[in-house]
Amino acid sequence: MENFIAYNPTILHFGRDVLKDLGSVVASYGKRVLFVYGKGSIKETGLYETVISQLEKEKLRIYEYSGIRPNPVIEDVDSASALGKLKDIDCIVAVGGGSVIDSAKAISIGTPAFHSAWDFFTGKAKPKEAIPVIAVLTLAATGTEMNKFAVIQNNRSKNKIGYGHDLMYPKHSFLDPQYTVSVPQNYTSFGITDLIAHALENYFGKGEASLPDRFVYSIVHEAINYGPELLTDLSNVELRGKIMYAATMALNGLTMHGRTYGDWGVHGIGHVLSVLYDVPHGASLSIAYPAWIRLMSDRIPERITELGKEIFGADSPEDTAKKLEAFFSKTESPVRLSQVGIDNSKHQLIRDTLSKNKVSGMNHQLSEADYDKLLELMSV
Amino acid sequence: MENFIAYNPTILHFGRDVLKDLGSVVASYGKRVLFVYGKGSIKETGLYETVISQLEKEKLRIYEYSGIRPNPVIEDVDSASALGKLKDIDCIVAVGGGSVIDSAKAISIGTPAFHSAWDFFTGKAKPKEAIPVIAVLTLAATGTEMNKFAVIQNNRSKNKIGYGHDLMYPKHSFLDPQYTVSVPQNYTSFGITDLIAHALENYFGKGEASLPDRFVYSIVHEAINYGPELLTDLSNVELRGKIMYAATMALNGLTMHGRTYGDWGVHGIGHVLSVLYDVPHGASLSIAYPAWIRLMSDRIPERITELGKEIFGADSPEDTAKKLEAFFSKTESPVRLSQVGIDNSKHQLIRDTLSKNKVSGMNHQLSEADYDKLLELMSV
Repeated sequence: MENFIAYNPTILHFGRDVLKDLGSVVASYGKRVLFVYGKGSIKETGLYETVISQLEKEKLRIYEYSGIRPNPVIEDVDSASALGKLKDIDCIVAVGGGSVIDSAKAISIGTPAFHSAWDFFTGKAKPKEAIPVIAVLTLAATGTEMNKFAVIQNNRSKNKIGYGHDLMYPKHSFLDPQYTVSVPQNYTSFGITDLIAHALENYFGKGEASLPDRFVYSIVHEAINYGPELLTDLSNVELRGKIMYAATMALNGLTMHGRTYGDWGVHGIGHVLSVLYDVPHGASLSIAYPAWIRLMSDRIPERITELGKEIFGADSPEDTAKKLEAFFSKTESPVRLSQVGIDNSKHQLIRDTLSKNKVSGMNHQLSEADYDKLLELMSV
Repeated sequence: MENFIAYNPTILHFGRDVLKDLGSVVASYGKRVLFVYGKGSIKETGLYETVISQLEKEKLRIYEYSGIRPNPVIEDVDSASALGKLKDIDCIVAVGGGSVIDSAKAISIGTPAFHSAWDFFTGKAKPKEAIPVIAVLTLAATGTEMNKFAVIQNNRSKNKIGYGHDLMYPKHSFLDPQYTVSVPQNYTSFGITDLIAHALENYFGKGEASLPDRFVYSIVHEAINYGPELLTDLSNVELRGKIMYAATMALNGLTMHGRTYGDWGVHGIGHVLSVLYDVPHGASLSIAYPAWIRLMSDRIPERITELGKEIFGADSPEDTAKKLEAFFSKTESPVRLSQVGIDNSKHQLIRDTLSKNKVSGMNHQLSEADYDKLLELMSV
C-alpha cells in the first residue's frame, strides 16, 4: 500500500424521511441561507416545499439561486457567489444532483473571495475560507455529497475542470432515496455508469491496495447486481437506496485508500465530449471506458483481467471490455459516439480539444496517437 | 437498508514514517501533553524515543502516564484523568494498542469531569467535553484508532463495559505498520481474530445492507488471505500494513452502514472470559465465535450459510462454523476453553457471571439455557 491520509468529515444522513432534521441542522450554522437548486424539478417532486418548510420552521432568512445547469458553468457560480457576499450568508443549502452540489461547493469558496471562483480551478488562487454547505441529494451518481471535489465548466475557455480542497466537504448531506424516484430511466442509468466509472478510475490509479481493490469490486458488483433491476422498477425505494449508497461509497475516499492518486483519464475524455456536445456526463463515460480498456489492453493486461475476472468472470482484457460494454448497453447507456449523435465529421474537433487540454490519465498517460485510437474505438 | 448516520472525523495517517508529522499535529492542539502508554514495550522498539523527539522538537510540555494494562482498568483511567486535570493538559498522545487508546479516550472525557470516568460507562453521566486524543497505533486489532468506542474493565464490579460518544473519536491516528513488526505471533494472531470478529458482529446486527455485507466479506477475505502468510513472516511490513488497515476498516463504521446496531453477543461472552481469567481479548473471541454460530445454526441458518459461502465456500451453518474454527486453529488462536487453561470446574462461575451481567446480543438474544449450551460448545 502507498502512504495515504484518510479524512472525511461529512455527516451523512441516509434513509427515508431524514429531511425532518434538515431545519435544525441548517439553523446550527446561522440565520442567513443561500438556497441553491437547478431548473425547478424539485418543485414538481414536492422537495422544494419540504426544504422551505424546514427552513421556515427555524425562521431562517432564505435567498434563492436557481437554474443551475446539468453541466454546471462558472457564470452561475460567480453570480451566486456575488449574491452570497451581498446577503452575507451563513450557509448554503444545495438541493439537487451533482451539478447543484458541485456548484454550491464552488460558491462556498467563491463567496468569501474577491475574484472569480474559476481562479481556484485553474490554480491561480487557493481558498482560505468557505461558507458551510449542507447538501440534499436528488440523483445517485457523482458522489459529490461526500467528497471535497467539484467539476465546473467554462464555456469561454471550452474546458471542464475538477478541483478539490478540504474546505469543500459538505458539512452535512441528506440522502433520502425517495427523492430519487422521479429520476427518469436514462439519467438513472447514467448515474449507475458514473458510479462504476468512479470506482474504476481509482482502481486504475497508482498503488497496490488489495482491500480497497475488494471495495471496488464490491461497489461495482452492487451496481451490476441491482442496477438493471432498478431500471425496470424505477419507483423501488429500496433499490434506489442501494444505488444511492453505492454511488456515495464509490467516490468518498474509500477506494482511494492505499493509493497515491486515481487515473481519471476516462473522465478527461468524457469531459471533452460533454463540453463540446453537451453529452450527459454518465453517457460520455459509458462510451469512453470500454474504448480506454481496449487501448490499455496490452499495457496493463493483468490488471484489467483481474478486474474482469472479479466482476464478470471475464478471462482476458478484451473479454473484460466486451462484458463491461454489454452491461452498459443492457442499461441503455451509450457505448459509441454515434449513439449520442456524434458522427465522424466531428472527430477532428474532439481530437483537437483533447490535444489542446492535454487530456491524459494521472497513472496511465495518453499520447496524441492514443487520441486517434480512442476516437476509432469509440466509433467502430 | 435501515436509516443511518455516517460520521467519522478521525484523520488517519497511514504508512511508513508517518510519525514525522506527529509533532506538528500535536502542537496544533496546545503546549501541555499527557503522553499515555503501556508497560514499556515502546521503549524496546524505539517508538518511545521517536515520539519524545517529535514532541520535544515542538517544545511541548510532556506529562507521562505509563503502565496501562492489556485489559485496561478504570483505576488507571481515573488516575491519569486526575493527572490530566492537575496539569491542565491540552491534548493526549496515546501510544500503544487498543488498551492504551481506549484508556486515552476514557481519560479524554474523564479529565474535564468531576467524577470517575466509570460513570460514563455505566450511563450515570454524559460527557460534555473532551481533551483531544492523538493516537499512535502499535497493534492491529481493535479498530479503536478510528472509532468513538472504548472498553474498560472494572475489577471491583467484575465487568467490562464498552461505551462510545462522538467526543471520543481520536482527532488523528498515526498508523505506521513498521511499529507492529515487534508484535509476537500469538498477539498478531489474536488481532486477526479480533478484526474478523468485529466485521462479523456487524454482519449479524440488525438491518439488511447488501453493500456493507460485501464490505464485511472483503475485510474477512483480506484477513483470511493475508493473515496466515503474515504469521509465517512477522517482519513483513507490507503484510503488517494490510492487516492493520483491515482492522481499522472492520470497526470504523463502514460495516455498520444501513444497520441499526451490531450484535455484540460474542464480545459479551468474550469479555466475561477476559475479566475472570485474563484471557486475551482476541483469544476469547476465537473460542466464543464458533460456539455462537453453532448455537444460532437453526435460528438464522440462511444468514450464517450466506457468510460461510462467501468467505469459505461453505454450504451449511455447521460447515461455516467448522471452517471458521479451522481458520482460527490454523492461526493458533484457541477455539476451546481448555486451550486457555479453563477446565470444567470453572463453568459455574462463568455461567453465573454471564447471568449476572445479563450477557446477550443486541440483535440475537441469549437466554440462560443458551449460556449452558455455549459453555458446552466451547468445551467439547
